[in-house]
Amino acid sequence: MGQMSDKKPKKPQKLRARLPRGLEDRGPAAISATRAMTEKIRAVYERYGFEPVETPAMEYTDALGKFLPDQDRPNEGVFSFQDDDEQWISLRYDLTAPLARYVAENFQNLALPYRSYRAGYVFRNEKPGPGRFRQFMQFDADTVGSASPAADAEMCMMAADTMEALGIPRGQYVVKVNNRKVLDGVLESIGLGGDENAGRRLTVLRAIDKLDRLGVEGLRQLLGEGRKDESGDFTKGAGLSAGAIERIVSFADFDIPTWEHDPHGITPERGDTIIGSEVIESDIALFGAEPTKIHVEYARNNFHTLEALQDKFADSPLALSGIQELLLIAELAASGGYHADRIRIDPSVVRGLEYYTGPVYEVELLLETKDEKGRPVRFGSVGGGGRYDGLVSRFRGEPVPATGFSIGVSRLQAALTMLGKLDTKPQAGPVVVTVFGGDIAGYQKMVAELRNAGIRAELYLGNPKHSLGQQMKYADKRRSPCAIIQGTDEKANGKVQIKDLIAGAELTSIEDRTEYLKKQAEAQIEVGENDLVPEVQKLLARHGVRWS
Amino acid sequence: MGQMSDKKPKKPQKLRARLPRGLEDRGPAAISATRAMTEKIRAVYERYGFEPVETPAMEYTDALGKFLPDQDRPNEGVFSFQDDDEQWISLRYDLTAPLARYVAENFQNLALPYRSYRAGYVFRNEKPGPGRFRQFMQFDADTVGSASPAADAEMCMMAADTMEALGIPRGQYVVKVNNRKVLDGVLESIGLGGDENAGRRLTVLRAIDKLDRLGVEGLRQLLGEGRKDESGDFTKGAGLSAGAIERIVSFADFDIPTWEHDPHGITPERGDTIIGSEVIESDIALFGAEPTKIHVEYARNNFHTLEALQDKFADSPLALSGIQELLLIAELAASGGYHADRIRIDPSVVRGLEYYTGPVYEVELLLETKDEKGRPVRFGSVGGGGRYDGLVSRFRGEPVPATGFSIGVSRLQAALTMLGKLDTKPQAGPVVVTVFGGDIAGYQKMVAELRNAGIRAELYLGNPKHSLGQQMKYADKRRSPCAIIQGTDEKANGKVQIKDLIAGAELTSIEDRTEYLKKQAEAQIEVGENDLVPEVQKLLARHGVRWS
Repeated sequence: MGQMSDKKPKKPQKLRARLPRGLEDRGPAAISATRAMTEKIRAVYERYGFEPVETPAMEYTDALGKFLPDQDRPNEGVFSFQDDDEQWISLRYDLTAPLARYVAENFQNLALPYRSYRAGYVFRNEKPGPGRFRQFMQFDADTVGSASPAADAEMCMMAADTMEALGIPRGQYVVKVNNRKVLDGVLESIGLGGDENAGRRLTVLRAIDKLDRLGVEGLRQLLGEGRKDESGDFTKGAGLSAGAIERIVSFADFDIPTWEHDPHGITPERGDTIIGSEVIESDIALFGAEPTKIHVEYARNNFHTLEALQDKFADSPLALSGIQELLLIAELAASGGYHADRIRIDPSVVRGLEYYTGPVYEVELLLETKDEKGRPVRFGSVGGGGRYDGLVSRFRGEPVPATGFSIGVSRLQAALTMLGKLDTKPQAGPVVVTVFGGDIAGYQKMVAELRNAGIRAELYLGNPKHSLGQQMKYADKRRSPCAIIQGTDEKANGKVQIKDLIAGAELTSIEDRTEYLKKQAEAQIEVGENDLVPEVQKLLARHGVRWS
Repeated sequence: MGQMSDKKPKKPQKLRARLPRGLEDRGPAAISATRAMTEKIRAVYERYGFEPVETPAMEYTDALGKFLPDQDRPNEGVFSFQDDDEQWISLRYDLTAPLARYVAENFQNLALPYRSYRAGYVFRNEKPGPGRFRQFMQFDADTVGSASPAADAEMCMMAADTMEALGIPRGQYVVKVNNRKVLDGVLESIGLGGDENAGRRLTVLRAIDKLDRLGVEGLRQLLGEGRKDESGDFTKGAGLSAGAIERIVSFADFDIPTWEHDPHGITPERGDTIIGSEVIESDIALFGAEPTKIHVEYARNNFHTLEALQDKFADSPLALSGIQELLLIAELAASGGYHADRIRIDPSVVRGLEYYTGPVYEVELLLETKDEKGRPVRFGSVGGGGRYDGLVSRFRGEPVPATGFSIGVSRLQAALTMLGKLDTKPQAGPVVVTVFGGDIAGYQKMVAELRNAGIRAELYLGNPKHSLGQQMKYADKRRSPCAIIQGTDEKANGKVQIKDLIAGAELTSIEDRTEYLKKQAEAQIEVGENDLVPEVQKLLARHGVRWS
């Protein structure tokens, strides 16, 4: 060891091929699933009259700045760099702030109210985790220039239609709706109104947002002195009085008269408008026994919820005005046939972002999955949004009402994959034309003929000295439906062999000897060069492989 | 003025809505044109057996670093920031370097040769100019793991097929092919081989790249002492000897036996394999007079070019091996029916990037456009690529041959728009249901019915107090085919008015009074509420507006 010289030249460092944390590559199955998904979403949004618009991946930081995801740490959370002229530029962290900039910049030329949609990658400079990426895709829709709750109602209906267009059965998703004004009214009534209480209000909002995960007792602790979690970490609470805490809890943990799905294995059809507590004849006919019980299960609707809310918060004018808006949303939804099974008023919906000013909504999937400890949990939120009347107006100096909805594409894609609603089966590979000897122009000609007939085809481009076995291994790895072989003899006779790789793979499962020999003979046929294209087409058709 | 206090509080600064230089927003027409284009490109690439792969927008800077667009200024040209752990991350400036990283990282799992394609935005931190953006889209295809010129030939054929799939007529585009080895052989023969001359080689490459723009005299100056441009700026030259300069010029300005397109208004069909100098009967039949002249015009082909090149650079073994590769490419192309009208050997193609190691290719559009001074110029390059055998191997420490092709999507889109090959006509807007009075639930119901029937439809979401005239103005701005109107009387009678806005717009051009009144009556009809959907469908069908 002592003999080794310090001056020994180092080997040139080989570069390590790796991605920064929280970023991912995507292969054919994921790409094709995303395309299928976004095309379906797009079709729904177009039907609703929305039109596409696209902004670049970066914006001036100040155009995003005031609405960073985490207002407590204004310079964190985003990827930023300085331009030549010293101005700061950031990668967009959502699609809402750039839209606000776009609308403000093009205000005079847009037909208002302006309905638009866009899909694109957003970037978060945050600590990545399992399923938590620093680049991910969102699909947003926004209506700018309408103060009417009808615009919010439209968003909720569009979200419901989107879920069904994606193949999620009714009853497996729900669009939950709340109104920030109700919550703000409640906060005001316990003395947390005004700019000076903005910080405490945010603490309360975040606590309510955790209700699902921590339960009512956890919420009480976070609203009061604070909460120690399982790891022993202590989160300081909002320090509210016992009375104030109970008022918030009674709002956030409001007992919604839920609509329970599918009590007897029968899914009610669209248009089942069951309101009140009378027994409806069609129900008796449908369910036979126990009509009353069944009926009670899903007779309760949004109007019941709103009535109960109204009774409870009658002392707050702000809360009441919020409830009025929710009432209009519920009415418009019902008029379109969207009942509480699809669009449900739910006071527990908060949405973390500070910029929401009115109705907020969230799309939840009710199908079950497992948490990290293997316990069954509901899949949960795949998108949401709300009214953000201040986001455009900060550029314009005049009020510009707006409401918008954002889908987390990757999360929704994971859910659809779980549900088996996305075809993630890889498509058939190309026909592989194998090569034999030095003259590859003849093989290239066959490839060109197949391609010209719209058939996916490849010339084997690996080392031309590779054996037929090696070339077949490649064809298998590529999931090729068939391989084309032309040796010296076939060439001399103007013939070509077509080897059916799908049938070949099935041979192993055949036990009858006669059958095996018959199938084996069929799995490789010799045809004239001129019949190559039609014979391959026959083979593809036989296996249900499409070509254009 | 003196009375104004310095301490007067400033009005809060209104944020200016604007994008950083060199970035652009995209509207419906551009988005739909890009989608149509990329779908067509994708179909061709799939047919060639290529499969999609997608990498994130950012990479570790060192993974891109060695191959920055401008090697002289290694830290310029890209957008970079430091991660939490101090490592530098950059936005990708092309799709080739990230692919090299991807392949190296997944080498064991890929079926080699690996054919893949991807479309995505790339970012350049450069001075923007007209038509020169800092974010733009590329569409790339690469074959990794094949050293065969057949892989390069395939790229060229695929590029040609892509142009035709996009509607560019044969004769209006050409894929030009060269080989770096030929150029390197020429450079070696004048004493510019070896690592120590890398800088001077780059200067020569760049000078040749400017041949089209500056002409032969400009090239001679850049290869010699240097060149003063029109503005008086001086560019230092490569300082070559007169003999060396002439050798380079004779290579770069090589007189290709060009194929001249369409001498008599007739475009030859695919498969016109006219080789040699005999007069072919079909030509006489086709062109009538002057068959000899016509024939001479396009009888010359790639093999003539290669023969001439071979004669000229017989003294350089490296150049000759490059010419052999080009010969194979020309043969494979010809065997697939791709002749010099589509894929043409052309020694003037250089491709600026240092990392190319073999065949290089470029797709040029031959249609004419105007330069900034209004002079007609050819549209020029819309894409290109070449063999880059070193890009993957720097991660792997073993040779990994690769070749790839990149389309500049925005530039190609501009060309297709010029050619009228892209439908940039905005699609018909949604049916607008106007509102009247406070109860909008009934109107919302109509909208839901139309949408459920697959018809693009909207509820008017502007101020509900807006007059019918204001609502119609909105519908016009949205290019709505029709508007739905229901006043108090119609409502009471279960009726609804359908106002045909397309027919209405055509009324002004009708001069005959009877005809006018007839058409006017037809342009607004009253129907029963239950007939709304079928009547709107009839109207849309009448105007050729599609619905789903």
